[in-house]
Amino acid sequence: MDREKLNQRIKDRGREFFKSISGEAPSVFNKSWWTGKVMDWAMKNENFKVQLFRFVDVLPYLSSSASLVRHIQEYFGGEQELPGVLKWGARGAGGLGKGIAGKLLAKTIYSNIQSMAMQFIIGENTSQAIKTLRKLRKDNFAFTVDILGEATVSEEEALFYQKSYLELLDVLHSESKKWKGILTGGDKDWGYAPMVNCSIKPSALYSQARAVDFENTVDVICKRLTPIVAKTKEIGGHLCIDMEQYAYKDITIEVYKRLRSKEEFRDFDQLALVLQAYLKDTDRDLEELLSWARSEGIRLSIRLVKGAYWDYETVIAKQRGWEIPVYTIKAESDAAFERQAERILQSHEFCYFACGSHNIRTISAVMEMAKELKVPEDRYEFQVLYGMAEPVRKGLLNVAKRVRLYAPYGELIPGMAYLVRRLLENTANESFLRQSFAEGAEMDRLLEDPQKIVEEKRKNKTTSHTSSATTRTPFKNHPLADFTKKEQREAFVQAISEVRQELGRTYPLIINGEEVYTQEKVASVNPANPQEVIGIVSQASREHIDRALEACRESLYEWRQLSGEDRAKFLFRAADYARKNIFKLAAWQVLEVGKQWDQAHADVGEAIDFLEYYAREMIRLSRPRRMGRAPGEINHLLYQGKGIAAVIAPWNFPLAISCGMTSAALVTGNCVIYKPATLSSVVGYTLTSIYQAAGIPKGVFHYVPGKGSEIGDYLVEHPLISVIAFTGSMEVGLRIVERAAKVKEGQEQVKRVIAEMGGKNAIIIDDDADLDEAVVDVIYSAFGYQGQKCSACSRVIVLEEIYDRFVKRLVEAARSISIGPAEDPHHYMGPVVDENAQKKVLSYIELAKKEGKILLLKDDIPQQGYFVPLTIVEGITPEHRLAQEEIFGPVLSIMKVKDFDQAIDWANSTRYALTGGVFSRSPRNLQKARERFRVGNLYLNRGITGALVERQPFGGFKMSGVGSKAGGPDYLLQFMDPICITENTMRRGFAPICEEDDWIE
Amino acid sequence: MDREKLNQRIKDRGREFFKSISGEAPSVFNKSWWTGKVMDWAMKNENFKVQLFRFVDVLPYLSSSASLVRHIQEYFGGEQELPGVLKWGARGAGGLGKGIAGKLLAKTIYSNIQSMAMQFIIGENTSQAIKTLRKLRKDNFAFTVDILGEATVSEEEALFYQKSYLELLDVLHSESKKWKGILTGGDKDWGYAPMVNCSIKPSALYSQARAVDFENTVDVICKRLTPIVAKTKEIGGHLCIDMEQYAYKDITIEVYKRLRSKEEFRDFDQLALVLQAYLKDTDRDLEELLSWARSEGIRLSIRLVKGAYWDYETVIAKQRGWEIPVYTIKAESDAAFERQAERILQSHEFCYFACGSHNIRTISAVMEMAKELKVPEDRYEFQVLYGMAEPVRKGLLNVAKRVRLYAPYGELIPGMAYLVRRLLENTANESFLRQSFAEGAEMDRLLEDPQKIVEEKRKNKTTSHTSSATTRTPFKNHPLADFTKKEQREAFVQAISEVRQELGRTYPLIINGEEVYTQEKVASVNPANPQEVIGIVSQASREHIDRALEACRESLYEWRQLSGEDRAKFLFRAADYARKNIFKLAAWQVLEVGKQWDQAHADVGEAIDFLEYYAREMIRLSRPRRMGRAPGEINHLLYQGKGIAAVIAPWNFPLAISCGMTSAALVTGNCVIYKPATLSSVVGYTLTSIYQAAGIPKGVFHYVPGKGSEIGDYLVEHPLISVIAFTGSMEVGLRIVERAAKVKEGQEQVKRVIAEMGGKNAIIIDDDADLDEAVVDVIYSAFGYQGQKCSACSRVIVLEEIYDRFVKRLVEAARSISIGPAEDPHHYMGPVVDENAQKKVLSYIELAKKEGKILLLKDDIPQQGYFVPLTIVEGITPEHRLAQEEIFGPVLSIMKVKDFDQAIDWANSTRYALTGGVFSRSPRNLQKARERFRVGNLYLNRGITGALVERQPFGGFKMSGVGSKAGGPDYLLQFMDPICITENTMRRGFAPICEEDDWIE
Repeated sequence: MDREKLNQRIKDRGREFFKSISGEAPSVFNKSWWTGKVMDWAMKNENFKVQLFRFVDVLPYLSSSASLVRHIQEYFGGEQELPGVLKWGARGAGGLGKGIAGKLLAKTIYSNIQSMAMQFIIGENTSQAIKTLRKLRKDNFAFTVDILGEATVSEEEALFYQKSYLELLDVLHSESKKWKGILTGGDKDWGYAPMVNCSIKPSALYSQARAVDFENTVDVICKRLTPIVAKTKEIGGHLCIDMEQYAYKDITIEVYKRLRSKEEFRDFDQLALVLQAYLKDTDRDLEELLSWARSEGIRLSIRLVKGAYWDYETVIAKQRGWEIPVYTIKAESDAAFERQAERILQSHEFCYFACGSHNIRTISAVMEMAKELKVPEDRYEFQVLYGMAEPVRKGLLNVAKRVRLYAPYGELIPGMAYLVRRLLENTANESFLRQSFAEGAEMDRLLEDPQKIVEEKRKNKTTSHTSSATTRTPFKNHPLADFTKKEQREAFVQAISEVRQELGRTYPLIINGEEVYTQEKVASVNPANPQEVIGIVSQASREHIDRALEACRESLYEWRQLSGEDRAKFLFRAADYARKNIFKLAAWQVLEVGKQWDQAHADVGEAIDFLEYYAREMIRLSRPRRMGRAPGEINHLLYQGKGIAAVIAPWNFPLAISCGMTSAALVTGNCVIYKPATLSSVVGYTLTSIYQAAGIPKGVFHYVPGKGSEIGDYLVEHPLISVIAFTGSMEVGLRIVERAAKVKEGQEQVKRVIAEMGGKNAIIIDDDADLDEAVVDVIYSAFGYQGQKCSACSRVIVLEEIYDRFVKRLVEAARSISIGPAEDPHHYMGPVVDENAQKKVLSYIELAKKEGKILLLKDDIPQQGYFVPLTIVEGITPEHRLAQEEIFGPVLSIMKVKDFDQAIDWANSTRYALTGGVFSRSPRNLQKARERFRVGNLYLNRGITGALVERQPFGGFKMSGVGSKAGGPDYLLQFMDPICITENTMRRGFAPICEEDDWIE
Repeated sequence: MDREKLNQRIKDRGREFFKSISGEAPSVFNKSWWTGKVMDWAMKNENFKVQLFRFVDVLPYLSSSASLVRHIQEYFGGEQELPGVLKWGARGAGGLGKGIAGKLLAKTIYSNIQSMAMQFIIGENTSQAIKTLRKLRKDNFAFTVDILGEATVSEEEALFYQKSYLELLDVLHSESKKWKGILTGGDKDWGYAPMVNCSIKPSALYSQARAVDFENTVDVICKRLTPIVAKTKEIGGHLCIDMEQYAYKDITIEVYKRLRSKEEFRDFDQLALVLQAYLKDTDRDLEELLSWARSEGIRLSIRLVKGAYWDYETVIAKQRGWEIPVYTIKAESDAAFERQAERILQSHEFCYFACGSHNIRTISAVMEMAKELKVPEDRYEFQVLYGMAEPVRKGLLNVAKRVRLYAPYGELIPGMAYLVRRLLENTANESFLRQSFAEGAEMDRLLEDPQKIVEEKRKNKTTSHTSSATTRTPFKNHPLADFTKKEQREAFVQAISEVRQELGRTYPLIINGEEVYTQEKVASVNPANPQEVIGIVSQASREHIDRALEACRESLYEWRQLSGEDRAKFLFRAADYARKNIFKLAAWQVLEVGKQWDQAHADVGEAIDFLEYYAREMIRLSRPRRMGRAPGEINHLLYQGKGIAAVIAPWNFPLAISCGMTSAALVTGNCVIYKPATLSSVVGYTLTSIYQAAGIPKGVFHYVPGKGSEIGDYLVEHPLISVIAFTGSMEVGLRIVERAAKVKEGQEQVKRVIAEMGGKNAIIIDDDADLDEAVVDVIYSAFGYQGQKCSACSRVIVLEEIYDRFVKRLVEAARSISIGPAEDPHHYMGPVVDENAQKKVLSYIELAKKEGKILLLKDDIPQQGYFVPLTIVEGITPEHRLAQEEIFGPVLSIMKVKDFDQAIDWANSTRYALTGGVFSRSPRNLQKARERFRVGNLYLNRGITGALVERQPFGGFKMSGVGSKAGGPDYLLQFMDPICITENTMRRGFAPICEEDDWIE
């Protein structure tokens, strides 16, 4: 193929294409209509665009005019500020909120937006949809129908979705009998294509689809797709499996292959798959798929699209610390599309090609390549979205004939969500459509070979990466586990099996670097299987504490004298070790405290984050800060470790919190006596190994598991202890605060207590909350790690307006959850940590039965192990114990309130103030929450667990905590005494003047 | 006078002058000699210069070779690093510290520097001096002799200085009988000038000279000068009163005028005065002096100099917030000199003129002006410093004949100090000498009219002062009182008299804005005169506390919801009010708690500083801080007031500390219950007035003086209290810590206690300490405000090497102090605060007699009032109670140690760790102190009291304090709960991207 010549022909064809549709614009950009005006305004004003899209998103939830008017005011300001464009076309100039006129304007806006949506959607239900399809077919457009739906949060919803497709196929089948094939007549379109053509989102078929549970997810989706595929085959239709977010990509490809490997579908080449050209993986995926098909003798059908989740994929990857899976230069995706289209066209003998693009350059390229490769016309077609780029589809029809419209239908809520995506696409800066029709970009530039653009862009990128080895990079969170990667899933399995080899060992105390095996020992067991002993752990006595303290006293001076930078180096080394061993460290937690894979991995990641962050923080704080600028004096503010710290750690974040508290104490120049929780002493021992590997001097850190009754008070009250860092229950925390405050004989310093205590955290569901997100996030916040997080959601406060809708979905979602041992990633929920916890939770369930009405008591749980039923109870009010006491288990109370103010009052009505959440799309209510919802960590429109180091400094007040936020910039200060050193630098009337001095000009 | 022509003639003459001395350089710049080489190096290398000058300064204290070698190493690095220039001329290349060779090199350096000094000093004693003077006279130079001495810290030293001058005059007189008048022969030089000519520093004649005690200072100095002037007159000599620092300027002028107003000296026109052209005041001072002389018919003699304390004056003014008294552009001083010289020459008929300058432009200008004004030759002369600018003096002799050398002599210690000043002058960037001889600056530029240069410089100064009213200026400390200003002295007298009119009133509680007069009342009295009742103060009961708490509870929500900026505005207004009323506010303290003027003024200044600083700090902290940069989420870290604060204040900084603690609590959004100390309740009431004037809402701040036994624990334990800010004794502090830690029924929050407690502060006197400074600063640190500061020095730890010298001067300095009521600024020390304090101090004095040896028990104190003797005791070791217990009075223990390590160990040997000080000129020991001297505020080479807001954030650890430093950047955090608000900004896969996001490139 002569590339240059081909490119020239592509350009020529493109120019002709443009000419053939010149003067026409897609209706969305037509400024004589409301939509066109609004889009124009949105493209000029980024803030308006954001507000508009958000408003469109919330619109279907606004069921009363009052609510509609209020939201318009909140999103777009008062009547004065309401952009003229929104008022356009409304009769009368009545201001918003001023009675009937205002309501009328609001209604106008509502219906304008509704009709905007109807531009992209073929109907709200099947019968409307069929009507529209008929019209389209009259205009010689084929279709593929897609059912829009809310996110599938429960199995009930998944099965409903499946059922809808089966019904749709039936309806289309019977309807199609009345149709004639496009262009050619007969019972096929274009002479060869089935008239009934549907597209389906696989993830919607299984509410529990998760990458970590790969096998099972593939399995269930295959199972649920099978009847749909079978029916499609039966009626002689076509079905395309849509490609969604990157997280489902491997699952979807695997689903497709499994289905096609089935005997009944091996030959059913009307089952198609979508590939997204913007994914960096796609070249490889395509090759694998083609070679698999070739070797299996299977005929494929592939729709190639650019991909519609670019913003989402990029943001999520950035948030989680993953490599961005999509191309970040727009032209890279365009070039990939052409490259991949060529590969498919080359394989036309066994692979049918659907080209999904609105880009005239892309379309022209496909046409010219097909011509060059002599691909028969019945081996490829073109697809565009309904309602988008009408001139393109018209032009396509003229030249290519075989044009299929992607035609979604569905109810208002998912409809608006779909509208937002379409608007976003139309208005994105780099969108071909925006450039072609809204901005009139130069034709030649639009038709340029994207590969050339990529090369130019790459050339222009300055390579100024001066990553000198001496300067530390800024802090970044350790990436979350990415279980879409097979390697990571396999590594976890491997790690668990390795750890299992090591179970049952006996563990010593570590005092002054020496292993001390004691008479008194305690066995730590697997809560999912208490027969399985994780380790047998030596228990410290008071004499052991004395020995450790003595070693601290001897080491303190030298350790404190090290520079902050030097101490930080130990933490960096510890982080290196933990990074290398992350899977194994996580596996210990899975077995010892019943953490799910992702959460165990996140716990180790958080430990690494603490090490990396506190090390950098210490370097920052150990630079003496000059105070004031007076000449002749230098005032340096600096900080020095307080002395010996007792760290009393919990079992629920057995590595992260232990590591956070100890590393903060260490890096600030304190010696540490570390008492892990008894239930997680073996994980505590892994922390000891990390510090040993990092070379922390032996006198500086001591591992002393032991009974609270034996050594707890002793440590807290000991006169040699200067700092106590504690995380645990309020009861123990307050006891420590009280006991530590009494100064003992020989005590050098008033003790500093840093205590993270309990929570009774609430999430408020406003009447306009996005339930797709709210349900999923409440479930995770309440039942993630069995609710055994101080940050967990234990109350959900729901406005009555939305109560029924929310609660129904919530309960169904919870019902869909699987409960079982954490080592099997299939289970969303595992056992609670021990028998005491089990008993406590069960007693609260009994109480729930008395105080409220049980909505769900999910008791299909293993008999062995410390499992408890997942429980949801409604009818709870602040007077109930269930609304006040920390349960630390999977028991969620639902509280119904009249309005948002009551919601906040109820949320604030406990002794605790740790985390809280609000799901709302009302800017005013979000602001109200910011001001009035009194918690340490407030989360707006997301779950309330999973705070990350630096990004969400963590900790509460009231009875939830004493001290500043872990993982935040003030945390280390608590472990140090501030010191100011003032030097008079003037001698004999002569003072050297420094640059920063406030000296004469 | 035709200015242009005159200027031309000046330049012509200057050019000739330069030509006449061309090729010659002052010996100090002669590079073939050690001094020249070293000076050259110093001018090229600022760091070396600093080290060299400091080394020169400490040199005479290095009495052993070991000490000499050690200091050379510390100042100039090890043998490898020793700059070659220092080794120059030394025989053998032996490294320092390597036995004999090293010692030899050190000795060489020592003697080189010594001979450098001898270049500027005519001898170490009178007989050496006379010898040199003889030589000078042979070369036709007249002289004026000055006795160099250490700073006068005691009356003994002052009287010794006086005696030395009387003896000098006798010796010179008898010697002069052997001399012949220069040029003309006879018994006068030049035919008219006395051969015996001395210069004297007036401040050296009175150890207690202070601007605030103006009248008395003038009086004593006059008295002590009188016999010297009389003897000068008697022997027919000449005496010039030198001008020293700006602080003594008005005193010195007044002394001169008083002396000349005496009948016996009215006609003695050989008593001269120096004026400094670099002072902005001098134009006015000169006019006043001339018109006074004219009207009194007195004949003057004035030496005009540029001024030698430029660095000092500038640094001090910057440090204290005063207007800089000197010109900051060098040419401004030069221009002023010419202007003032002209005024004097115009008055030649009654004013003799001595022109003191090395600047050829200046000299030429004086010559030409004298010529223009036809001033007879016997009405003016030229003076230059001995050892400086030899070519100039030679050239001057050629053309002007009448050249007098300023010829100091004295011992090594003051000699080296003098040397440093001379070297500084020679090497200053803008020094005429440096430019003329070392740098060969262009002749024309050097001879330019300085007024022209000034105008050019001013023109070039960009006027980019965009002081928009909306932006706050950065924080600056309130200026310290400047009692050199008559207005300030008078304002204080006025304020005391105003306050005295208001004594004896009855004061109510202020609860919720209401005045509440109670049955129970306590009288507050003047500790210098307990008969004098300051005020009668209502005492709060528990019911009053309840009422105040209830009001707080009602006001809290609204107050906390205000923005930090809005709350800060109240503080700015309070500061405005306090600034306007500073003298009166200070006067209340003088009478109620016996504070000296300057300290009472500083206390109000500190209160203003707290208001201004915390307001700005709150504005800083209330800007939400974005954490992390992940796109799609905004994490804001912010802070919210904890609730209701109890502020329990001390009497010793009755406004400053009360204001600091309350304003911090208020501005962070807490309501405040303020309990002042009983002994300073009336000053406490002035704080209430300040807040009322600022408009602090009535429910937010409550004034509740009362007995600790009645309301202290009640407040501390009350469940509604969330924060306790306390400053006072360790005993009470620890009681509060303990009681506050017990959580009570109904308590919402674990209490935060911020407690500033006691100190047992030590100053270490190293064997190379500058005693001139150490003695003065120890006296002030120990006896300022009667030692009633938590920061006061109560132990001085002295190395045995320097023990005798230091202790002798210290005791004599202390003996010179005057004790009496604080309202009379003459008294350095006043009464302790009440009878209890008096008894306590007296009992410690009894203990001192047992534990150590009393060196001074200064009991010339008023009988009335709570006065105690100033006491110094030696022989104290760490075992003694005197070394361990806080006395809070003027009792200073001296501890003798072998070496610096022992000094630090002893310094650290108490339960406290508040302030500490070190006087040392050993870089290594200063570093050791930085690392090992464990106190909250460490001061190197200055006193240990008087910490300023922002510049010296204040507070200690161990048993000295709980919490962070007052007036520092972490202080406000303690009054707030940190809150992190996380918003998920992604909706429907669409997230607005912010500028700071970590977004793709």
